[in-house]
Amino acid sequence: MGRSLVFSTNTPLRFSHLPRSISPLNHPNQSQVRIFSARIGLWNSKSFRKLCTRAVLSGIPNQKQYQKMGAQSTGPIPQNQLIEVVETAAKTGAEVVMDAVNKPRNIVYKGLTDLVTDTDKMSEAAILEVVRKNFGDHLILGEEGGIIGDTSSDYLWCIDPLDGTTNFAHCYPSFAVSVGVLYRGSPAAAAVVEFVGGPMCWNTRIFSATAGGGAFCNGQKIHVSQTDKVEQSLLVTGFGYEHDDAWTTNIDLFKEFTDVSRGVRRLGAAAVDMCHVALGIVEAYWEYRLKPWDMAAGVLIVEEAGGTVTCMDGGKFCVFDRSVLVSNGVLHSKLLERIAPATAKLKSKGIDFSLWFKPDNYPTDL
Amino acid sequence: MGRSLVFSTNTPLRFSHLPRSISPLNHPNQSQVRIFSARIGLWNSKSFRKLCTRAVLSGIPNQKQYQKMGAQSTGPIPQNQLIEVVETAAKTGAEVVMDAVNKPRNIVYKGLTDLVTDTDKMSEAAILEVVRKNFGDHLILGEEGGIIGDTSSDYLWCIDPLDGTTNFAHCYPSFAVSVGVLYRGSPAAAAVVEFVGGPMCWNTRIFSATAGGGAFCNGQKIHVSQTDKVEQSLLVTGFGYEHDDAWTTNIDLFKEFTDVSRGVRRLGAAAVDMCHVALGIVEAYWEYRLKPWDMAAGVLIVEEAGGTVTCMDGGKFCVFDRSVLVSNGVLHSKLLERIAPATAKLKSKGIDFSLWFKPDNYPTDL
Repeated sequence: MGRSLVFSTNTPLRFSHLPRSISPLNHPNQSQVRIFSARIGLWNSKSFRKLCTRAVLSGIPNQKQYQKMGAQSTGPIPQNQLIEVVETAAKTGAEVVMDAVNKPRNIVYKGLTDLVTDTDKMSEAAILEVVRKNFGDHLILGEEGGIIGDTSSDYLWCIDPLDGTTNFAHCYPSFAVSVGVLYRGSPAAAAVVEFVGGPMCWNTRIFSATAGGGAFCNGQKIHVSQTDKVEQSLLVTGFGYEHDDAWTTNIDLFKEFTDVSRGVRRLGAAAVDMCHVALGIVEAYWEYRLKPWDMAAGVLIVEEAGGTVTCMDGGKFCVFDRSVLVSNGVLHSKLLERIAPATAKLKSKGIDFSLWFKPDNYPTDL
Repeated sequence: MGRSLVFSTNTPLRFSHLPRSISPLNHPNQSQVRIFSARIGLWNSKSFRKLCTRAVLSGIPNQKQYQKMGAQSTGPIPQNQLIEVVETAAKTGAEVVMDAVNKPRNIVYKGLTDLVTDTDKMSEAAILEVVRKNFGDHLILGEEGGIIGDTSSDYLWCIDPLDGTTNFAHCYPSFAVSVGVLYRGSPAAAAVVEFVGGPMCWNTRIFSATAGGGAFCNGQKIHVSQTDKVEQSLLVTGFGYEHDDAWTTNIDLFKEFTDVSRGVRRLGAAAVDMCHVALGIVEAYWEYRLKPWDMAAGVLIVEEAGGTVTCMDGGKFCVFDRSVLVSNGVLHSKLLERIAPATAKLKSKGIDFSLWFKPDNYPTDL
């Protein structure tokens, strides 16, 4: 089967008017479709080209303007096999977290407001067991346990056993378990189990993606929103524990975008916020100072849902970078008009934007 | 049956150690209890006083320091009868909203970023029908329909048929249906149906309260958190559509509290944020420029869950005020150390903090 690409039309089409060979990719709340995926070979058909009154191969403008950051493939391990283990690992961690949501927290402080709980550690241990049982020779980078395994491995697992620990400590959704695996430095497969609802109605949903294979939520294909105006967009950002110059700059960006958009949400878990971009319920998310385990899964899910991922200066992103902007793609340049100069200013002041948490000797194609 | 009050102990007690006559009021994720309610008459028992090593009648210090804003009673209509209609009204509106969550939105702009959808209007119509069928002579103030009914009525229904319309438009939880009824100007009964989860896992939970009767979520009694340190608190705020001096001041407060607390969340629906304070998952919420329909239900739910409600300058609150701070009570003064001077400064600049949306001739005891 050929590779699928994303096409769109000028006027919406009813689902019922679509031939079977193409799949609607709209937001689930829309009964009409302007964006869909189809095998690239279909483009040779005249009737198909007629249907696509405005042929937009959504990957292509993004690829031209902003380089993709996902891996070219999942490497020697087949896509299906890799994603199965990634999903099992994330679900196994999520079981540990779900078991803990209604129990007392045992909180330890990493900093004045930076927390860790027993659940973070137990979830990571459970995830590690799944990974090592299946791929004993892979390298693993866990938020709690650091680097484990063979640094010469092409595969690096980036594990956040409980993203949004502060929210978890307060029983405040959202938080998540995030498992992303890199192949030679680039995201190849990802799963995020998001906890939603809160006391009296806890529930989860699982997001997943593989490089080139699309993004899914609870098994349904998902796509970013089509909103192309900042004033019609809903945005989300985050603020880290270190209250440095980048933190202050992002408070300014929060103010600017709160002023010109429909609102900037602040929910507190990077993986969750990125999955919300992929799901099309917010248009973009950005943050300084995230770590590989916060981002490895979420960025791939956004890119595979048709979105764009760059650093906050607009440069090519890798998961060892210290800033990220993910968006629905069509808004990316408009957002960078404000975000990139603010980031460039930080760089000009000598603020450290070098790669971090990149394991020594880990082989990459970056 | 006598009026219940809230007591606490210095050391936690196991649930199993409590006599039947007192009810634990802890956060649902705690197996031990330091705070509970009991009939005030029980205070005459020596063994009970011994149990309460530190007898804190939680209502009393709050009442001394900050005046309660809830009604003295539900007036001539019995508590049970009033709350039944309030809950039915909110649930009826919520059915309309739930029916719409997966359908296309028909959005109309009130301003550049201030939206209204067909669902807001349909939900309000459904709620109005319930209220008028039960209490044809009551006054009603709806977000969409304005004032309806007899202005000489002692009862004023404040209805937000869809609080968080922007979130609803984006399928982004949370949003809510909020129904609060005032008796002679003060909140007497309240219900908020919160929508949680989002695409693939929509769900609701219902919060309710009556003046003097406590606060509940899905039928379970709820209580605010006991956190008494700002640096251990999770907070939430909101920013309105009018980007005036009060808006700018709140951006500054957002920055200050993000700096010193565990975080400030920004979720986008006032009624939801207040219910989260009542549920004990965040410690406090504040916002300038809310309307009676945003606040009438939420403030009563917080106060009845043991929290404190004032204006942002610390003054006595009524639902026609233009600012609100709700908290778990123990943190209220500490939060006001920063919030009150900022608000006083706005007042000194001549910013309008007079009552608004108070129906002409509506009789109150304010």
